[in-house]
Amino acid sequence: MKRVNNQSWQRFLPVLQWGRKYSPNLAVSDLTAALIVTLMLVPQALAYAMLAGLPAHVGLYASLLPLALYALFGTSSTLAVGPVAVAALMTASAVQPYSQISMAMGLQAALVLALVSGLFLLLAGLFRLGFLANFLSHPVIAGFIAAASLLIATSQLATLLGVSGSGGNMRALLVNLVEQLPQIHTVTIVLSIFTLFILLLSRRFGTKVLTKLGCSRFFAQTITRSVPAILVVIGTLCIQSGAELFEGIKTVGDIPAGLPEIAMPVMDLAMIKALALPAIMIAIVGYVESISVAQKLGMQRRERVDSDQELVALGVANLSASISAGMPVAGGVSRSVVNVDAGAQTPAAGLFTAVGMLLATYFLAGWLGHLPRLILSATIVVAVLSLFDIRVFAQTWKENKSDFGALVATFLLTLFMNVEWGISAGVLLSIGLHLYKTSRPHIAVVGQVPGTEHFRNIDRHEVEFSPEVITVRVDESLYFANAHYLEGYIQALVAENKEMKHLILMCSAVNDIDGSAMMVLEGLNTQLAELGIGFHLSEVKGPVMDHLKQSALLKHLNGQVFLSQYKAYQALACL
Amino acid sequence: MKRVNNQSWQRFLPVLQWGRKYSPNLAVSDLTAALIVTLMLVPQALAYAMLAGLPAHVGLYASLLPLALYALFGTSSTLAVGPVAVAALMTASAVQPYSQISMAMGLQAALVLALVSGLFLLLAGLFRLGFLANFLSHPVIAGFIAAASLLIATSQLATLLGVSGSGGNMRALLVNLVEQLPQIHTVTIVLSIFTLFILLLSRRFGTKVLTKLGCSRFFAQTITRSVPAILVVIGTLCIQSGAELFEGIKTVGDIPAGLPEIAMPVMDLAMIKALALPAIMIAIVGYVESISVAQKLGMQRRERVDSDQELVALGVANLSASISAGMPVAGGVSRSVVNVDAGAQTPAAGLFTAVGMLLATYFLAGWLGHLPRLILSATIVVAVLSLFDIRVFAQTWKENKSDFGALVATFLLTLFMNVEWGISAGVLLSIGLHLYKTSRPHIAVVGQVPGTEHFRNIDRHEVEFSPEVITVRVDESLYFANAHYLEGYIQALVAENKEMKHLILMCSAVNDIDGSAMMVLEGLNTQLAELGIGFHLSEVKGPVMDHLKQSALLKHLNGQVFLSQYKAYQALACL
Repeated sequence: MKRVNNQSWQRFLPVLQWGRKYSPNLAVSDLTAALIVTLMLVPQALAYAMLAGLPAHVGLYASLLPLALYALFGTSSTLAVGPVAVAALMTASAVQPYSQISMAMGLQAALVLALVSGLFLLLAGLFRLGFLANFLSHPVIAGFIAAASLLIATSQLATLLGVSGSGGNMRALLVNLVEQLPQIHTVTIVLSIFTLFILLLSRRFGTKVLTKLGCSRFFAQTITRSVPAILVVIGTLCIQSGAELFEGIKTVGDIPAGLPEIAMPVMDLAMIKALALPAIMIAIVGYVESISVAQKLGMQRRERVDSDQELVALGVANLSASISAGMPVAGGVSRSVVNVDAGAQTPAAGLFTAVGMLLATYFLAGWLGHLPRLILSATIVVAVLSLFDIRVFAQTWKENKSDFGALVATFLLTLFMNVEWGISAGVLLSIGLHLYKTSRPHIAVVGQVPGTEHFRNIDRHEVEFSPEVITVRVDESLYFANAHYLEGYIQALVAENKEMKHLILMCSAVNDIDGSAMMVLEGLNTQLAELGIGFHLSEVKGPVMDHLKQSALLKHLNGQVFLSQYKAYQALACL
Repeated sequence: MKRVNNQSWQRFLPVLQWGRKYSPNLAVSDLTAALIVTLMLVPQALAYAMLAGLPAHVGLYASLLPLALYALFGTSSTLAVGPVAVAALMTASAVQPYSQISMAMGLQAALVLALVSGLFLLLAGLFRLGFLANFLSHPVIAGFIAAASLLIATSQLATLLGVSGSGGNMRALLVNLVEQLPQIHTVTIVLSIFTLFILLLSRRFGTKVLTKLGCSRFFAQTITRSVPAILVVIGTLCIQSGAELFEGIKTVGDIPAGLPEIAMPVMDLAMIKALALPAIMIAIVGYVESISVAQKLGMQRRERVDSDQELVALGVANLSASISAGMPVAGGVSRSVVNVDAGAQTPAAGLFTAVGMLLATYFLAGWLGHLPRLILSATIVVAVLSLFDIRVFAQTWKENKSDFGALVATFLLTLFMNVEWGISAGVLLSIGLHLYKTSRPHIAVVGQVPGTEHFRNIDRHEVEFSPEVITVRVDESLYFANAHYLEGYIQALVAENKEMKHLILMCSAVNDIDGSAMMVLEGLNTQLAELGIGFHLSEVKGPVMDHLKQSALLKHLNGQVFLSQYKAYQALACL
């Protein structure tokens, strides 16, 4: 059987492996996928930059180097990296205080965010800290996604109504909207509704209708996925026409010609310090989004995704965004799925997408300045509303009340405070609830099921036991936070059962035991010995036995270690 | 069998239970114990108040109401409550900023500390939060005790050398000592060495020598335990004699005549806010010290100690200290042991001790003003150095490297920063290391031991298995922090084993499963189904099965749930 092996130095540059076997056949597949992803990425890149409160071309710049470098360092063949909605939302709230001073400051802040995110991811990858992302439990992620999609959709309402908008959380967004309401622009609203309608319809029925009309499935899907790009072209042409009808519609505005300059971001220590926490949050959330889609796609294709190397690759991608006038990037869910469907075979598809974006940026930049903002906003709204799933609340409530607590806390704090508060509170609550649960493990006094070798809880089953030989089963690994709970339980049991001569601790569910718990057992052993009560262990697992052998407990044990609970009870109850 | 029952309302006033059965015989025992404990407590109370940087009589005041009220509310018959060394040290560093302004402010701060500690303990008791104390793991407590005893001993050096001293951590203490060195007082040093010598000798050999000289064991122990009190009397008489030799020796100073007034502490919100964290730390550390000795003694006497009611009792004791010009109190280890040895039978012993302290305070207060401070300092040094055990470092290093990390971090931070830092860092480190360990559980691919029904790790044992039916055993309960780790492991396994047709997840070590882990298993099930791989579970425990039945997984499971791993493998490998 092949085993997991990622110790080789080549793990840091996966391109060395797949690059050697590259062939013209693969290239054709990859090029096709790249073309389709490029068509999808151009409007998304512009839209997410706008969502982040930055000039639209920043999104294009963030789709050049980061994609190319991810292709060299990443272990997923199909993950499509670039600007993503959630990271853009988080960037927006972090950048806002600076962009209010000047857009130059805002741009600088975005670069610092990408820099710190990139460094954090790179270091986490080198020190193999990918496991940290696991502490974002499912309810926290679900609560965050629900709140983020509502926030993003609401933030786009201003543009769809033809007014200017800003605000870091739901309250600020709504207050701003109400204040701006007198300035709404009727033509913008009509066109917004029309655009939303087209996007929703094409998303829902496009492929189906086109295949019924006789198109091949591939062609139908490609057309459907290109609808946002087509709307971009139509919208831009409309504005360019100079027709009176379109006056007053807000456009993307001047986009600098040519390509971004490569330069180190300005190192402003105060700004770095202020943005460190949001940057780390962006890194973690972006990583969680990326790794989950990469692993899912990887398994479908039977390809291994290395979670630590993904940290390195996303770190390098973000660092490259920070030196090429970009913004924080991550692996996007929808684009990655499209990439796979469109036939991407190797990371070269990402490389080709980068080339496509380079051409688009170089040739279309000036022209895209005429693009109406409302089209981008409509694209964003349609994209994020598909993420919002109200059923997750009811479902979580039904399945687990404490998970529901973490979900709602994350949701409300993200919505009404900010993302950092929401996620931190959710993570701390999840960890706290988990520790609480394991710190009060289920402990039962067990007795023998008559005529069998089985032992069951005396409160739930008809079992037999001698008042002189009492068996306690603990249903959890023992560690510092629950060892004293067990000790207190046994102390109370001993205090109240004056006939007890032997105590058997049944360890069938104890997977591990730490130093503090060992000390507690040693203390219990001494205390029981002083009372003339034998202290025995049964059904001790291998790893626990290894620890026991290293400790002083086995040497001083005032009793025996039995292989099975049945043997223990037989031996002691017959004395 | 008698079971634990603490739901009755009487749990809040245990005196109602033991009070009814009180008898003259019990009273004689309790009175004897109270007399001996009082002799021990008078010098300790004065000494610990001094250690806390407060006037010595505060210690006496803290030994009146708190003892009486603990006797009514406590569930331990033998726990001796009052000023203790560790709480006094923590009080010292919290009070210092205020006592530097004026002693009145310092006194007020001590009352606020007792008030907030008391409230915190009371609330924790009412809400049954006693389990929180379990998060102080053994290495954290050991590191803290080691650092605290060194700090306390060093803080007394100044008094023993006849100079004035202060400082919150080791660095400040040593700097102050070096600065004060020119002012050392020779007679004080000589007497200090003499006192220390007497205390150490009597502690070590007193009982042995006196019994050899023909005293009864009880009488010998009582004399030995009264040595500090005897030294107090001799020292005070020496100073009172006015002999020239004793000039320049620092004394306790004026002690107000009579008893403390009962009054609410001054409510200064800024002070309450500043002292909240230290007060909570004092409460937690004091509680941990109290409950551990109470439970140990309770089991020896076959009496049940209720850990939540102890919170209530200690809370009431501290609240009473705050309204009677006292300082934070807790259950002391050495005095409780003496209390038991001296024959205490019920909490009435504590009540009688309170009466003894009342008489001592009323009649001796003025006279005790002449007591030389060096005698109190020597008492403290001898008491705390017995707590310091250098071997704990070597032992912990040998047994568990991560425990050693928590131990050393707590030790160094307590020594060189302060107690709050030390304990917080230790607790966070313990929790972090525990979470890290459980977030990367041991997972093994297992195969059948030929000719048996047992399955073992394929890397460690000679076992057989089919490449089409792969069994994965996870040796830990599944929760949000490790579910994705398992998912990644299985995804990689599937990616690299192209012949796999069935995957069996062997759950023999899974004691519990949370909502996030369930979602991950559902996701895995879908992914495996898409690949045409069957997903089976074996050896699922009862509580896990209950969760499974509530979830969507069982409904959609692309495979079966088998009672035993053997049956699962038989059924699938034969297909």
